[in-house]
Amino acid sequence: MSGKDIDTTLEDGSVIHNTFTIERTYPQSPARVFAAFSNKDMVRRWRVEGEGWDIDEFTYDFRIGGGEVSRFRYQGGPEIRLDAQFQDIVPDRRIVFAYRMKIGSEPLSASLTTVEFFSSGGGTLLRHTEQGAFFDNVDSAKGREEGTRQLLDALAAELQRA
Amino acid sequence: MSGKDIDTTLEDGSVIHNTFTIERTYPQSPARVFAAFSNKDMVRRWRVEGEGWDIDEFTYDFRIGGGEVSRFRYQGGPEIRLDAQFQDIVPDRRIVFAYRMKIGSEPLSASLTTVEFFSSGGGTLLRHTEQGAFFDNVDSAKGREEGTRQLLDALAAELQRA
Repeated sequence: MSGKDIDTTLEDGSVIHNTFTIERTYPQSPARVFAAFSNKDMVRRWRVEGEGWDIDEFTYDFRIGGGEVSRFRYQGGPEIRLDAQFQDIVPDRRIVFAYRMKIGSEPLSASLTTVEFFSSGGGTLLRHTEQGAFFDNVDSAKGREEGTRQLLDALAAELQRA
Repeated sequence: MSGKDIDTTLEDGSVIHNTFTIERTYPQSPARVFAAFSNKDMVRRWRVEGEGWDIDEFTYDFRIGGGEVSRFRYQGGPEIRLDAQFQDIVPDRRIVFAYRMKIGSEPLSASLTTVEFFSSGGGTLLRHTEQGAFFDNVDSAKGREEGTRQLLDALAAELQRA
């Protein structure tokens, strides 16, 4: 499925559900790519920090039932808050987590994300599947897929860093 | 989307993603139907208890970030465990929760469920959307939709009870 499948026919005020899948290959092994999700410092570098972003909080407890709280803002804007909880972890194979996002006091979305790691030609095929429920508008659902592509670019840079 | 959209083309050992939506109407008001999800005793009656089921644990904390733990077994079989966390709650309008299930020590699935309540002809149109990631097999994804239909029947009986 892709962003084109976004259902815009629902009644006013209801939730927009959208699923997207992105595949990327990295030259590093599944164990190396997995570590970029399990190691708090690495996660902070490639997924939380960024030019213009202030981080107010970042907690990360990588175990099933554990979770993440991230609070950040862009150039003095409203606080964006992410609350995640890990649903399934199979080392070097897959990570499944649910997360919700809020901007200021407004709930934006809840999602279930599956990240799978496959050995591929000496490197890793990463498959990111995000099943989302969006509370505000269709643009937000579309933006999530684009934002995820940018994060997977940042992951490539993190993996080259070490 | 329906069960027919289940993706069976993925590589061995990967996750099956499936989304289904079920709509049901109930003669009671959205506030009455919502209460059957917010009230712990009502939830226990229509969604947890049942002929042949032993309940080992049922905790229910209905607030965003709160959750549910249910542990039960059918006729002396292996323990089934459900861990849920509420992602969004708008009274009388919608409830979004993530949950994972395990049978014995085997993780079975993680899901994001959206339940929406709409006024409709003096009663309620309930729309249940479940976006699931299944770890074992396609039958389990299909069974979830059928199981949900049965639960929504049990909800009708609970609503008639009061």
